[in-house]
Amino acid sequence: MEAIQHLHWRYATKKYNGSQIDQDNLNTILESIRLTPTSLGMQPFKVLVIDNPELREKMLPIAHNQAQIKDASHILVFAANTHITEEIIETYINNVATTRQMPVENLAGFKGMIAGFTGSKNEAQITEWASRQCYIALGIAMSTAAALKVDTTPMEGFKADEMDVLFNLKEEGYSTAVILAVGHRDAENDQLAKMPKVRKSSESLFEFYS
Amino acid sequence: MEAIQHLHWRYATKKYNGSQIDQDNLNTILESIRLTPTSLGMQPFKVLVIDNPELREKMLPIAHNQAQIKDASHILVFAANTHITEEIIETYINNVATTRQMPVENLAGFKGMIAGFTGSKNEAQITEWASRQCYIALGIAMSTAAALKVDTTPMEGFKADEMDVLFNLKEEGYSTAVILAVGHRDAENDQLAKMPKVRKSSESLFEFYS
Repeated sequence: MEAIQHLHWRYATKKYNGSQIDQDNLNTILESIRLTPTSLGMQPFKVLVIDNPELREKMLPIAHNQAQIKDASHILVFAANTHITEEIIETYINNVATTRQMPVENLAGFKGMIAGFTGSKNEAQITEWASRQCYIALGIAMSTAAALKVDTTPMEGFKADEMDVLFNLKEEGYSTAVILAVGHRDAENDQLAKMPKVRKSSESLFEFYS
Repeated sequence: MEAIQHLHWRYATKKYNGSQIDQDNLNTILESIRLTPTSLGMQPFKVLVIDNPELREKMLPIAHNQAQIKDASHILVFAANTHITEEIIETYINNVATTRQMPVENLAGFKGMIAGFTGSKNEAQITEWASRQCYIALGIAMSTAAALKVDTTPMEGFKADEMDVLFNLKEEGYSTAVILAVGHRDAENDQLAKMPKVRKSSESLFEFYS
């Protein structure tokens, strides 16, 4: 099956060759992020798509000087919502009503459910719930990229507080959840490119109850 | 691009038709979970693959009586590690050494880094870090399933504590992070099957820094 071949082809790229990925491929990866299913359909995040060299220079020390920040084609910063305001809920409900051509009144129950769910959580809990949704998008983006023969590196090694300051995220109600570098591998100089993938066996990862 | 078509085809299925998915398709979905990239390569989770009707009956009230638990082909329970023990690190490092045919001594630095990272986190932090990795696998599994025309429903609506008790997870050092139902939609009776997908516009989801 092709999806499995793609996943075998991909690896967490350490060295990128500095080239830009095709614009159509970037758009496809972003569209797959946009279509990612999320809790209650709320997509509680935004994604910064960074190409700018000066910004990368500033991100570099915040991400422990990992070379991907400079050498990848683009850096995607997944910024999770830290608060779900009434306005966010309102905007979402209006989007549902418009997209599905239904009166907004019909969504009163759904709206109340969302308000109850998000209202019962504190800032840390909202941030965590929203961050997990970012990780669904991260997985889908890596699947899509691999099918396009675009390399990716998921990155958790950065100082989130400093990244938030750099992009003024906190004031806007967001916090950096995870980063994805995308680009093309420098296969000759990335020793990881040739190494076999290390994974648990099926026997140790899955438990069957049939 | 096919990946985008697949994502348009899929939706969070509410009504399944009760049929079993093809065994090869199930195996492919599980293999994509096994190949999912995770933090430090550690795959800090296991996945319960549930078909058994009696177990589903017990899961049903824990998952707020959502019909997918009964009607889907299989239920995948992603159980995140709550602790990273020395034994877990040892097993992983040995797997790296064996897979990559290198002396385990060469991995001393990497091993120390993992021990430092996991040792600096408390149980809640480890559980959260591990749960996020489950969500990467969730995203990849949904991508793979959609390409196979297998429906999925990501589910967060369940009482995690009770699910942990049902599967004896806590004692084994795990906690339920998220659930994925897989199967085939009952397209005639699932009104959501025909509804347009609700998503943020690209303009509101992405910020470009070029």
